[in-house]
Amino acid sequence: MRSTSRPVILTGDRTTGALHLGHYVGSLRNRVELQHTHQQYVLLADSQALTDNADHPGKVRRSVMEVATDYLAVGIDPSLSTICLQSALPALAELTLLYLNFVSVARLERNPTIKDEIQARGFGRDIPAGFLCYPAAQAADITAFKATVVPVGEDQAPIIKQTNELVRRLNRQIGRALLPEAKALIPTTGRLPGVDGKAKMSKSQGNAIPLSASDAEIATAVQRMYTDPNHLRASDPGQVEGNVVFTYLDAFDPDAEAVAELKADYRRGGLGDMVLKRRLTGILQSIIAPIRDRRSELAADPDTIMDILRAGAERGRQVTEQTKMEIIEGLNLFRL
Amino acid sequence: MRSTSRPVILTGDRTTGALHLGHYVGSLRNRVELQHTHQQYVLLADSQALTDNADHPGKVRRSVMEVATDYLAVGIDPSLSTICLQSALPALAELTLLYLNFVSVARLERNPTIKDEIQARGFGRDIPAGFLCYPAAQAADITAFKATVVPVGEDQAPIIKQTNELVRRLNRQIGRALLPEAKALIPTTGRLPGVDGKAKMSKSQGNAIPLSASDAEIATAVQRMYTDPNHLRASDPGQVEGNVVFTYLDAFDPDAEAVAELKADYRRGGLGDMVLKRRLTGILQSIIAPIRDRRSELAADPDTIMDILRAGAERGRQVTEQTKMEIIEGLNLFRL
Repeated sequence: MRSTSRPVILTGDRTTGALHLGHYVGSLRNRVELQHTHQQYVLLADSQALTDNADHPGKVRRSVMEVATDYLAVGIDPSLSTICLQSALPALAELTLLYLNFVSVARLERNPTIKDEIQARGFGRDIPAGFLCYPAAQAADITAFKATVVPVGEDQAPIIKQTNELVRRLNRQIGRALLPEAKALIPTTGRLPGVDGKAKMSKSQGNAIPLSASDAEIATAVQRMYTDPNHLRASDPGQVEGNVVFTYLDAFDPDAEAVAELKADYRRGGLGDMVLKRRLTGILQSIIAPIRDRRSELAADPDTIMDILRAGAERGRQVTEQTKMEIIEGLNLFRL
Repeated sequence: MRSTSRPVILTGDRTTGALHLGHYVGSLRNRVELQHTHQQYVLLADSQALTDNADHPGKVRRSVMEVATDYLAVGIDPSLSTICLQSALPALAELTLLYLNFVSVARLERNPTIKDEIQARGFGRDIPAGFLCYPAAQAADITAFKATVVPVGEDQAPIIKQTNELVRRLNRQIGRALLPEAKALIPTTGRLPGVDGKAKMSKSQGNAIPLSASDAEIATAVQRMYTDPNHLRASDPGQVEGNVVFTYLDAFDPDAEAVAELKADYRRGGLGDMVLKRRLTGILQSIIAPIRDRRSELAADPDTIMDILRAGAERGRQVTEQTKMEIIEGLNLFRL
């Protein structure tokens, strides 16, 4: 199962809250597929979560189990994928510190992802140093597993570029291609908007549908969904673009042909929002119900989850310590 | 011997070259005294040495054994002091990354030590990120050993101040004084100038007397020493201030009274440089000879040094891992 000939994927999530439908569309369901064709490491990025949550360690701590439960509930299979807790792998911290010596402060500050996130979070010069350094930490994560495929949103692509700069810099000094360059795997599905139509589904924005949502909660969320504000009567022609219900149907309805017909009907007039919302509600309920059920089964047995995390950390430690030793030898550093 | 009631000292050196007389005066001979009254950890700071030597890892690697040999040769006793290789203690890297989340980039840039060193090294904005972050790394080193006494040069005092800021920040969040604040121990002897009279003795400046110097090398170095350029004939009055030979006599001559008389004679006129230099040569030779001899004995047996480093790393790991776990629990972080 763990054939070394399979390409290595590194993926994961910052542990800052339970996952939601946006994660499901953007990454979780892909991981369930990719684990059959790739050697997949899924990182619970609790150390990275702290880079902008130093004041909220409790949130980060609680989220570790939440996210691990989400992983298992959607079908990430610990016999196919390795789920690793970032903070349980000291080699990642050691490689991060090492890599920070090979990158300038100016280069970190020029990273577009960092620039955007500094602005979005309103950090200014008060940016925590750990946050500025996180591209080096991600380079450590990616290279420690020798990952060649890293699924990321388009906004994170500069991190992969910076990782590869570091890889080339290190390989040049080592004198051979010890570390592989990584490719960003940008999902074909666009980012799922929030139920309010905002670009990003996010728990903190209150516009997310969690993977633990009950049927009633799903119905309420869909009911609140932004459609076409000018489509007042069912008989009026309606707009499909920017209509969140259609965006969701595109993302979740398995019958693309039927969705195309519904869009045509809606544009022509004569199709009411309620019909669409009922359809979407049913689809989302059928997707979430089994996840929610597995989620509650799993949540009732935290010991099993802890065992899975311990086994994953053990495997992750083997791989990352091995890479660390290769880098230490390659760079000709002192070794006790 | 390892009584916990003794105050804990953390000291050490960046491994960027063998040590010299400047180190002996400024720190080594103090450590030999302090190890009898303190619990002393001596850090071979190879990770920190890389923060501005990423292009010269070979120098850093070779220096580990050089510095370790110097330590043992001057009388740092591994049964009284714990000699620890920084890179062998992963908890130090993990705590550094954690601490970076509690300090802003602006605060690191305001650190006077960092500011001065950036200027001295001509880094500008191309400063390696690891170098900017090193106050957090030093805070990790100091707190991981729960050191309360840190011998540093005056120029390094701001690092201790920043460490204590972090200690207070962490203790506030932990809710109790888990980590002690540290006091800088500034040596009473001023910094030893180079033989050329420049403020700092430094191997790279070519103005240093290494602890491995032969009698002939010592004599030559003293011969080159800067005295009073206007003191042309022995009968002329000479100047004591800024006269490197007198600075060295102040630092090394055990007979302070005799030195005071020599100073008076020199000022009056009638005392030639050669008399002084012969005296100093004899004193330095008698200090360095036993160190040099022990140095060559030790250098002939690298396995013993490696054993000492391994035992020190083992003790260091116990202490630093323990502190790391206390911090993880104190901050209520996730623990596998």
